[in-house]
Amino acid sequence: MRGAVLYAPRDVRFEERDVPTIIKSTDAIIRISATCVCGSDLWPYRGANPVTEPTPMGHEYCGTVEEVGSEVVSIQPGQFVIGSFFASDNTCPNCRVGYQTSCQHSEFVGGAQASLLRVPLADGTLVPTPGVPPEDLIPSLLSLSDVMGTGWFAANAANVQPGSTVAVVGDGAVGLLGVLSAKQMGAERIIAMSRHQSRQRLACEFGATDIVTERGDDGVVRIKELTNGVGADAVLECVGTQQSMMQAIRSTRPGGSVGYVGVPHGVELDGEQLFYSHIHLHGGPAPVRRFLPELIDLVWKGKINPGKVFDLTLPLDQVGEAYRAMDERRAIKVLLRP
Amino acid sequence: MRGAVLYAPRDVRFEERDVPTIIKSTDAIIRISATCVCGSDLWPYRGANPVTEPTPMGHEYCGTVEEVGSEVVSIQPGQFVIGSFFASDNTCPNCRVGYQTSCQHSEFVGGAQASLLRVPLADGTLVPTPGVPPEDLIPSLLSLSDVMGTGWFAANAANVQPGSTVAVVGDGAVGLLGVLSAKQMGAERIIAMSRHQSRQRLACEFGATDIVTERGDDGVVRIKELTNGVGADAVLECVGTQQSMMQAIRSTRPGGSVGYVGVPHGVELDGEQLFYSHIHLHGGPAPVRRFLPELIDLVWKGKINPGKVFDLTLPLDQVGEAYRAMDERRAIKVLLRP
Repeated sequence: MRGAVLYAPRDVRFEERDVPTIIKSTDAIIRISATCVCGSDLWPYRGANPVTEPTPMGHEYCGTVEEVGSEVVSIQPGQFVIGSFFASDNTCPNCRVGYQTSCQHSEFVGGAQASLLRVPLADGTLVPTPGVPPEDLIPSLLSLSDVMGTGWFAANAANVQPGSTVAVVGDGAVGLLGVLSAKQMGAERIIAMSRHQSRQRLACEFGATDIVTERGDDGVVRIKELTNGVGADAVLECVGTQQSMMQAIRSTRPGGSVGYVGVPHGVELDGEQLFYSHIHLHGGPAPVRRFLPELIDLVWKGKINPGKVFDLTLPLDQVGEAYRAMDERRAIKVLLRP
Repeated sequence: MRGAVLYAPRDVRFEERDVPTIIKSTDAIIRISATCVCGSDLWPYRGANPVTEPTPMGHEYCGTVEEVGSEVVSIQPGQFVIGSFFASDNTCPNCRVGYQTSCQHSEFVGGAQASLLRVPLADGTLVPTPGVPPEDLIPSLLSLSDVMGTGWFAANAANVQPGSTVAVVGDGAVGLLGVLSAKQMGAERIIAMSRHQSRQRLACEFGATDIVTERGDDGVVRIKELTNGVGADAVLECVGTQQSMMQAIRSTRPGGSVGYVGVPHGVELDGEQLFYSHIHLHGGPAPVRRFLPELIDLVWKGKINPGKVFDLTLPLDQVGEAYRAMDERRAIKVLLRP
């Protein structure tokens, strides 16, 4: 079996890997229908996270169950399934309150940029679709594995309500799907912060009502201008840098909420500034598993089409080009077919 | 008129001050029935905040309206009133959503440790009691001006619900009233973190079900032990130091909430640690005005008795001793009568 392995910054190779097998009786093996490159894959690709050893890449997946371990009861071979990038038992106290990415037995699912994948804790992690999906739903279903679930969590964590005024910091795939999520949750006004035309266009298609091209202090000033000097009710932080985090916090009205899902890199928050901002802050690794049944239903019924964030599709053996296209921002998000 | 003025760390003087007068047509003048020393008064008293000029002290008050400006319509001379330490118009967008301490026209109310006080924005700031209160309700009504409203906001910001497991970091008057607030909101289990017997006793009287004497890492371990390894649903942070804030965050279960009301001094939060904690964080200067009608009602009907936090009452001219008693932790909170 061949799959993507990162050896060093900008050195991703498509090479022979061991075929995954059932290791624990709670595992499942999935034949990947589609996978993709995540914004978070770019951190080690760019050298922002260290690469200490050759690392099989990819954690977004959907596909058909090939085999299950002896203890798996709710998933059968032949089913089409989607799972989160974190495996979870879905029964521990943290799972039961909807924080499956803090599962007491969570395991990161890595190596999905390949033709086969081992998924631990299959009963808790995988959710089957109502049937074998038509080809045109595959991109949207794939997106639920991480990027759409993460945009949805950003909007959920920012407490987007019908009628809310929302601002979205970050025009990557997560930010764009944050726009779609806010729209779906009934936001009245959605301000997308973006300076790239193709991304602005998709943001508008997903429901953005305003575009702000300014960043940092200037971006905050523009958000305040657009909200009678008060700030947005809900701000989705979808980047993870000090600048984007402060832009989000300062764009939020007192009593409003920041939902942050960009993995923080070097972010330090000043306690006093946060205190006087009067905002609600919530976020973290998106508990995608919580949202999978609802999001599968929305995709299946054609109510949302998050697969539109994939603006480039490549065969899996061109995974190197996929990373380059995203790194150079030539593509928003690249879908890979084994 | 005489009042308390802070000249330098530990140099608080009771001396002649100008009688306050109506300056703006929206002001009121109050004859103080009772005032007190706040935990936050101890920051400059101890030199942790700079004292740049002689500063009239005190911001907690209740009393009888003496005079109102020409534009004041809802408050009349002779009424007994309580107000927040921040004056607010109660009509701006931030006030309308319940964040009166972020009022677009807010003004800090200072100099309440005196016999008379000017309160700006009287219509928006002051709430009258149903009638002239009996003497025994004065301590509880005074507490609503800040300390009880702040403890209540901590519990509100930490999303305390019926059946919640709550932990309270800090055994000062705010923390103790956080315990009372959590109890009133229906918490099932309330863990007070305190190593002082008299404060532990009052915490238990207010509704604490468990006492934890350990601090820092050891305190977190104890909270985890008491909550099946998961952490508390809601944690009230009522101190404002780096240690207390981290103790609060780390004692909270994934998906749980920290309500923080201790004014942060030198607090820096690591973004990545916060991200993976999966907690909700909310707090700031308590919007006491939001809660005044409800809390006045609870005190008036005898359902809560927050005035118990005053374990020492002194005549106002002994204000110096009041500061010393609180600084040396001989008293939890000192009530002063002009």
